[in-house]
Amino acid sequence: MTVTAAQGFLASGVAAGIKESGDADLALVVNRGPSRAAAGVFTSNRVQAAPVRWSRQALSDGRLAAVVLNSGGANACTGPSGAEDARRTAEHTARALGVGVVPDEIAVCSTGLIGVPLPMDKVTSGIDAAAARLSPERGEEAAVAIKTTDSVHKTAAASGPGWTVGGMAKGAGMLAPGLATMLVVLTTDADLAAPALDAALRGAVRTTFDRVDSDGCMSTNDTVLLLASGASGVTPGQAAFEEAVHAVCLDLARQLIEDAEGASKEIEVQVVGAASEDDAVTVGRSIARNNLLKCALHGEDPNWGRVLSAIGTTDAVFDPDRLDVAVNGVRVCRDGAADEPRDKVDLSARHVTITADLRSGDASAVIWTNDLTAEYVHENSAYSS
Amino acid sequence: MTVTAAQGFLASGVAAGIKESGDADLALVVNRGPSRAAAGVFTSNRVQAAPVRWSRQALSDGRLAAVVLNSGGANACTGPSGAEDARRTAEHTARALGVGVVPDEIAVCSTGLIGVPLPMDKVTSGIDAAAARLSPERGEEAAVAIKTTDSVHKTAAASGPGWTVGGMAKGAGMLAPGLATMLVVLTTDADLAAPALDAALRGAVRTTFDRVDSDGCMSTNDTVLLLASGASGVTPGQAAFEEAVHAVCLDLARQLIEDAEGASKEIEVQVVGAASEDDAVTVGRSIARNNLLKCALHGEDPNWGRVLSAIGTTDAVFDPDRLDVAVNGVRVCRDGAADEPRDKVDLSARHVTITADLRSGDASAVIWTNDLTAEYVHENSAYSS
Repeated sequence: MTVTAAQGFLASGVAAGIKESGDADLALVVNRGPSRAAAGVFTSNRVQAAPVRWSRQALSDGRLAAVVLNSGGANACTGPSGAEDARRTAEHTARALGVGVVPDEIAVCSTGLIGVPLPMDKVTSGIDAAAARLSPERGEEAAVAIKTTDSVHKTAAASGPGWTVGGMAKGAGMLAPGLATMLVVLTTDADLAAPALDAALRGAVRTTFDRVDSDGCMSTNDTVLLLASGASGVTPGQAAFEEAVHAVCLDLARQLIEDAEGASKEIEVQVVGAASEDDAVTVGRSIARNNLLKCALHGEDPNWGRVLSAIGTTDAVFDPDRLDVAVNGVRVCRDGAADEPRDKVDLSARHVTITADLRSGDASAVIWTNDLTAEYVHENSAYSS
Repeated sequence: MTVTAAQGFLASGVAAGIKESGDADLALVVNRGPSRAAAGVFTSNRVQAAPVRWSRQALSDGRLAAVVLNSGGANACTGPSGAEDARRTAEHTARALGVGVVPDEIAVCSTGLIGVPLPMDKVTSGIDAAAARLSPERGEEAAVAIKTTDSVHKTAAASGPGWTVGGMAKGAGMLAPGLATMLVVLTTDADLAAPALDAALRGAVRTTFDRVDSDGCMSTNDTVLLLASGASGVTPGQAAFEEAVHAVCLDLARQLIEDAEGASKEIEVQVVGAASEDDAVTVGRSIARNNLLKCALHGEDPNWGRVLSAIGTTDAVFDPDRLDVAVNGVRVCRDGAADEPRDKVDLSARHVTITADLRSGDASAVIWTNDLTAEYVHENSAYSS
């Protein structure tokens, strides 16, 4: 169930001293091959952290030998010296892993506070310590070392006949994918070339991580990587492989939203009857980002007027007088006006479903979000300190 | 300093019993002429309340004799019966005002909970009571009667030689202009035709109310009206008149942001060095809507990384490595990386200024917003109950 569930991968995690708390903060995931094919998806934020810029370039030839990840500092908005630090991190990792590994095959991921330089002496000694501990048994240890405000570490796996996809993720709310950064490393022992990995990863990310919108804030560091060792010797069919990658991504995405900072509700926004999938996603995001609605759901108030108001800010195809809204299956709004009494809706459970029917077509999409709570405000007003 | 500061206007406010609290909840503003020229700006939300649909149509000939406003119910998302209620409100007001007034010259404004029908018996008897109290001395009374969660009523005025512009507003945060609705009525005794009023009003709204973004939520009911009586007999120059309307709008917009629900900071987001005004507004809104930044400022943390991250989500012209950010005048970020130490920034005052320099041109814009607080969550999770 971890990043070492697939054959051919080693991992480890250590406390390098980057975090003041002394908690684990540096992880390695190493691909022992025989293949080094890889794919990646990065934040669409135009302000990109140094490790994202580095890893994009490292991945340009579709090969990765290893990923080095640190929590305790994002190395974002750190200027030329931050770029130098990301390069040195990759170089030091290549040296620590030994013969046959070059820096250009090392992806670097960082997460933590923006604008603060990494303590490179601690990073490099942490890499040495992590390299010395590498094992196929330490996937969980790696998942723990990449946590920031996460309350739990996140891992998942799925298998086909003779092959496996495993993965780990960090992120605790603040996703769009989100500011405190979502980092995901997936591994597989399936024998597939980079283009097949890329297609599977992009397809899965588009309908999983990209539809998690905890607070509308997009990170400078978000990274999702998929490394293939080929160690199983099996080349699965593309459809079966894509299904497995999707399952692992969906599992991890749900773990992220369940662990969102300060949240008391997981909210599944279902948009149906849309003229296009783009319309459905646009409307879903607008609903998911409406602070007033998120407050209302926190207060267990099925405030469907705020749903309509959020829909009304979009350019999707719909008629305001033909909008239906259900909350937890109770149709509280029909034809843009009140229908079933709102006190029929039971919002006491943690999971909430909002269904918005645009009655304009057959397309649909689901966006996951959280409620807005005083705890969210508290955690995020004290983050730097 | 009120909606009756200009000659030719009467106003009043009464407790009609629409609000369960028994507070004042119905207001009238009446133009005694000789002119009835008028202009209006309405919410751009595609889900529009019945009174907005009514008032748009009433204004289509550029004339208004009166405005009737109620708090305690938005008459939004109320279907065909809501439309009928808005029409009946205008008809009853026309009858109450007597000879020479027709329903098509009455604008209707409502604010309060979405999706709940208005208690029309209370509305009509309230209109009768308000009509009986009309006076040039009761502008303040009208401003009080349109409050919802506002902690104070809001009025303003500006004058030129022989003529005056006065106004009142309601709204307490939740502006984009915002969900709990911003209602503004401006009056003037200047003698100007509807096109001149329209130009002045649109210009002023574009750079005042449209740049207040307390929580990114856009109302179904927002309305800004300008009525001209011509009673001064003076026709001011267009530039002088536009300046006065702008001054009154700016004054009221600032009062709205200062009274935002649960806020502890007023945040002035200045975007400079933009390639275009549109870019400056887009970047300013993205910064103003970033929940993580709003939490950080609540915690008095000058978290400039969250400013850069918000800029990075826009399509404005900028180079990520040439962005500067100052907080309260201290340049904490230069060339996209740390500059002055963040502990030089004093965030203890209620007013906070964030200056983002895109270094890509000469255009600029200011967006006003608030911090995000536990009190905001509390007020908005308990709003319906």
